[in-house]
Amino acid sequence: MSIHQLTNSAGEWLRGNGPHSDIVISSRIRLARNLASYPFVNAANRRQRFEILNRCHEQLTNGRLGDDVLWVDVAAGTDEDRQLLVERHLISRQFAKGDTQIEGQAPRAVAVGSGETFAIMVNEEDHLRVQVMRTGMQLAEAFSQIDHIDDVLESSMDFAYSNRWGYLTACPTNVGTGIRVSVMLHLPALKLTGEIEKVRRAARDMHLAVRGLFGEGSEALGDLYQVSNQTTLGRNEREILADFESSIVPQIISYEQQARHALVRQRPAALDDRIQRAWAILTHARMITTEEVLGLLSQLRLGVNLGRIDNVGIRTINELFLMTQPAHLQRITGCEPEPAARREARADLIRRRLGA
Amino acid sequence: MSIHQLTNSAGEWLRGNGPHSDIVISSRIRLARNLASYPFVNAANRRQRFEILNRCHEQLTNGRLGDDVLWVDVAAGTDEDRQLLVERHLISRQFAKGDTQIEGQAPRAVAVGSGETFAIMVNEEDHLRVQVMRTGMQLAEAFSQIDHIDDVLESSMDFAYSNRWGYLTACPTNVGTGIRVSVMLHLPALKLTGEIEKVRRAARDMHLAVRGLFGEGSEALGDLYQVSNQTTLGRNEREILADFESSIVPQIISYEQQARHALVRQRPAALDDRIQRAWAILTHARMITTEEVLGLLSQLRLGVNLGRIDNVGIRTINELFLMTQPAHLQRITGCEPEPAARREARADLIRRRLGA
Repeated sequence: MSIHQLTNSAGEWLRGNGPHSDIVISSRIRLARNLASYPFVNAANRRQRFEILNRCHEQLTNGRLGDDVLWVDVAAGTDEDRQLLVERHLISRQFAKGDTQIEGQAPRAVAVGSGETFAIMVNEEDHLRVQVMRTGMQLAEAFSQIDHIDDVLESSMDFAYSNRWGYLTACPTNVGTGIRVSVMLHLPALKLTGEIEKVRRAARDMHLAVRGLFGEGSEALGDLYQVSNQTTLGRNEREILADFESSIVPQIISYEQQARHALVRQRPAALDDRIQRAWAILTHARMITTEEVLGLLSQLRLGVNLGRIDNVGIRTINELFLMTQPAHLQRITGCEPEPAARREARADLIRRRLGA
Repeated sequence: MSIHQLTNSAGEWLRGNGPHSDIVISSRIRLARNLASYPFVNAANRRQRFEILNRCHEQLTNGRLGDDVLWVDVAAGTDEDRQLLVERHLISRQFAKGDTQIEGQAPRAVAVGSGETFAIMVNEEDHLRVQVMRTGMQLAEAFSQIDHIDDVLESSMDFAYSNRWGYLTACPTNVGTGIRVSVMLHLPALKLTGEIEKVRRAARDMHLAVRGLFGEGSEALGDLYQVSNQTTLGRNEREILADFESSIVPQIISYEQQARHALVRQRPAALDDRIQRAWAILTHARMITTEEVLGLLSQLRLGVNLGRIDNVGIRTINELFLMTQPAHLQRITGCEPEPAARREARADLIRRRLGA
């Protein structure tokens, strides 16, 4: 599998099924690990970073994590390659950008597992950032997989660990278990009713971060919200997971469901109007921006999940969230990179995918 | 023919054909006449107004203006009846409202000719306001018909006339020939490019009035502009007509055509995008306001006239301009008068008429 084969479909996390997939797009767990014998990435020089890279390359592609792990040299790729990986949530924006302390492209890579169920960034903020992704509400399954990956890696690599603090990480917020749990939620009804602000406040009180589709700064485009824990010190993985599974996520799901039922009950015509207009514009526009697409796809997704429109499946909608992003769009359509050309290519692609 | 039969189709002026019908919706000519033996309407008491009404009733429905003249007692109708006549441009808003100087409903009526090619208001500002309407650019034909009507009326009625001033009217701006010439123009491209302001300024310099679809205050909804002469004193009918026919209208048509060609040449994708979105929303919306409908119909009409979409004919579009107005909508669909119910009924009606 090469990076070019990634483009035409979405990975596991956008499959659009799995438990509570009407609201929970995906579940993710991330671990931060560092090799004991090297300084943290920000303190490592170019030679050391190459050594870390080589060490990890060997360990991650020796077949113990599966036969078809794709090793992508992020430094060697083009800007478009890197953007593509960001859009697929396989690497972070920061990682794509590189490290200005290092001359030229900082040595870094990502190992992508079969079906994109996991991705391991090497030389991000930490030596290893292991991420597991699952469609729908599947944190337990994700945890079990990441736990397995962690065991496999630990059996042949010596991670920086303190008996007092736990796993040591470059940033103190990750010290301890080094675990970050996050769910991507589709909350169009809470957004429409304005109740999303209550959810945000409640999340803040629980020390959770609420971000948009592409992390900080991407303000809930497409009504997609990533909810994640902020700190890992002082709590074990099971406690953090249990919070998400039995309390945080079920609560938000329940709020969103109530808001959806209220929309259906109180203003069905207004709801159908929004859904039908979304479908109409997506299937007829000749130019369209990413922002507008995400908003319309959100309405359409709500419509399909409420059974008020059946012209399209959730998987297609989820894939369009991804395919209409700039790098994917450019790779798929070969369009010119000018904004106007992109807007046209995006509209064409959507009409094609929706069979219009 | 009764007023109820008017509702389901549009009159002559919205037929959507005739010369230059891609830009000129309709041509209208209006004459103001007063009976010499009565004071002007605003100075006439209730009894005198009834006498004027009876006199005109007899003259207008005796068959000399055609066998199927519809006499509508505007005072006896409902507010919805009056609103319906306003929407069809058969009576003025002022006439629908009545005269607050008179207790109760002021005695007034309108005589509507076959196919709504003419309408004669009795007891508006003047005793008789004769209006002839034609689809497309047909001022000469309209003039010839109104001249004939004037001759017929004058042969049996004594109109207030001064050798020095010409026909005497209640308002000095109509003294002289009492003629008002107007054309309804569809100018979406000039609106889009912003050049409409130049047209407005030029029109003002030529002492022309530029108004929206429903006269003063209705700011160019649907990019429809009524251009008319302001004064009638000191110029004869032929001169006023010649101005419109050989100079004013051809000039505006030419500007609009240039603007349309520029849109096609410079930004075809943006043009098609607007047209397709208009079609999409009109055929999918479940709630829609009059204002939005008029804007979308305007884009669709432009698209059909430029040959960029062929899903619908101009006549249907023109009729929708009328059918989606409140009184027509209510009469056709029997919907509740609440705004929300109207918005739903309007969307349903449009989808039905567009075969969606």
